[in-house]
Amino acid sequence: MDILFLGTGAGVPGKLRNVSSLALRMLNERGAIWLFDCGEATQHQILHTSLKPRRIEKIFITHLHGDHIFGLPGLLGSRSFQGGELPLTVYGPKGIEEFLRTALRVSGTRLRYELNIVEMDEGLVFEDHHMAVEARRLDHGIDSYGYRLQEKDKPGILLVDELKKDGVPPGPLYKEIKEGRPVTLEDGRLIDPKKYTGAPQKGKTIAILGDTRPCEAAVALAKEADLLIHEATFSAETPKMAHDYFHSTTVQAAEIAKQARAKALILNHISSRYTKEEEGMLKQEAEAVFGPVVLAHDLMEFFI
Amino acid sequence: MDILFLGTGAGVPGKLRNVSSLALRMLNERGAIWLFDCGEATQHQILHTSLKPRRIEKIFITHLHGDHIFGLPGLLGSRSFQGGELPLTVYGPKGIEEFLRTALRVSGTRLRYELNIVEMDEGLVFEDHHMAVEARRLDHGIDSYGYRLQEKDKPGILLVDELKKDGVPPGPLYKEIKEGRPVTLEDGRLIDPKKYTGAPQKGKTIAILGDTRPCEAAVALAKEADLLIHEATFSAETPKMAHDYFHSTTVQAAEIAKQARAKALILNHISSRYTKEEEGMLKQEAEAVFGPVVLAHDLMEFFI
Repeated sequence: MDILFLGTGAGVPGKLRNVSSLALRMLNERGAIWLFDCGEATQHQILHTSLKPRRIEKIFITHLHGDHIFGLPGLLGSRSFQGGELPLTVYGPKGIEEFLRTALRVSGTRLRYELNIVEMDEGLVFEDHHMAVEARRLDHGIDSYGYRLQEKDKPGILLVDELKKDGVPPGPLYKEIKEGRPVTLEDGRLIDPKKYTGAPQKGKTIAILGDTRPCEAAVALAKEADLLIHEATFSAETPKMAHDYFHSTTVQAAEIAKQARAKALILNHISSRYTKEEEGMLKQEAEAVFGPVVLAHDLMEFFI
Repeated sequence: MDILFLGTGAGVPGKLRNVSSLALRMLNERGAIWLFDCGEATQHQILHTSLKPRRIEKIFITHLHGDHIFGLPGLLGSRSFQGGELPLTVYGPKGIEEFLRTALRVSGTRLRYELNIVEMDEGLVFEDHHMAVEARRLDHGIDSYGYRLQEKDKPGILLVDELKKDGVPPGPLYKEIKEGRPVTLEDGRLIDPKKYTGAPQKGKTIAILGDTRPCEAAVALAKEADLLIHEATFSAETPKMAHDYFHSTTVQAAEIAKQARAKALILNHISSRYTKEEEGMLKQEAEAVFGPVVLAHDLMEFFI
């Protein structure tokens, strides 16, 4: 998996950072991409990457502020125009369906694929064989959610040499054994899959949070996560401003990561008031509390 | 006046051209900017210009397809965020109000200025001391309008030397005379303003058309215009495709300009299927029928 940041700014687009969106690429794991938020010109950012909109399977919206949703109608339309045919599901707070259906209807946008819109609440939002997604409400001016993605543990590697040594012939049976199912050979032997697979690989946990003040829900979502992506709209020097606008500072984001015992922190949603030269300072503020810290920038890739 | 092209592409954004928008700058004439259409990321394009969103007084929408309106909610929000306080009026076909009000309400976007939305039809859309704007319905899949902007004639220059020669003292009276009003001097003489002003300066006429097949309304809107801005989504080699998608070819745009006896033609709304290398060919196709022709590109300025 890897995360490709498409927009890492706050509120309004600037020359340095676009408004919010990030892509979680799981092409090996499930042949699909998930987006988190879709601010205006997300599709324009995608033009500068290798992302294929037709591979976007799900879009999770953290909250309905314009800098997180105004790129959705255009992206959905272009995905169809460019030949996307697979179904797509958008998850978001109440109101996302009215916004999208109105924009698509008024503009006469006809999608050639099935669009599902799920207005979600706290709790388990999605689960399948590969991933579970849980949402919790954060502390922002409007309903804003954080998502905790829990990848399922993967089976251990197949010990092919051991199988061959014991005279188990290669073939479709190997897949059964790798996936943990006992199989019976033609000669009547029962094969215990545990004996021929390594230790299961622990699935990754990623917390991707919408705009928020520091809050308990953020800690819960990030609990022992491999990666926490937290907003840091403001510098540690302006905690009052952060509070007044329902946002967090760099240090507050780091404190959440520390309390949650997350393994890594990415600072995201950086206000356009900060210049490129000030980015080092923002990162250092967080690093005084927690490490490792990465300050997100547009088109940055992070492998996990 | 000058026209700044913000997006000159068709349908979907590409690396070469953004989706539709252009700005008519009338800073000397009325201290204001008018936009025509506002596709997604128009506000991003504006970041690369000297345009101040707070100076945008009116936005005219030609039709409701996404590539002409999906940038509106974001631009309106950012105009407020950046301190815009003057009222703004959006003109567009029926549906524009539902689209905008829904997007602003769902996203919790609060504007600090007065937003007026006028759902217009054919006829005179706006008129004041400086400009009249007339709309006619074109031939597109959905209601699509063209706008004819008729600048009012400006008074001729004041012949100051003549006034002085005849012993008319400089002062506020000169303004009255320049604006064509007869004045009586203290010595009782009646001054005929015609005698002391040059010939009136003819106001400019500009036709800015939405997406359309070639049609009579386009000719009427462009009649003897100083400038016609016409879509040319397709090359002259694919008239059937242009017809099927309710668009025009380069040659069809040129034929409209010729029939209307317009003074100049700008080809706009160019499909992303054409590369930079093919632009010369597109221009030449039109020039075989009419001249002068300019092929629009993003951030091009045209002085009129």
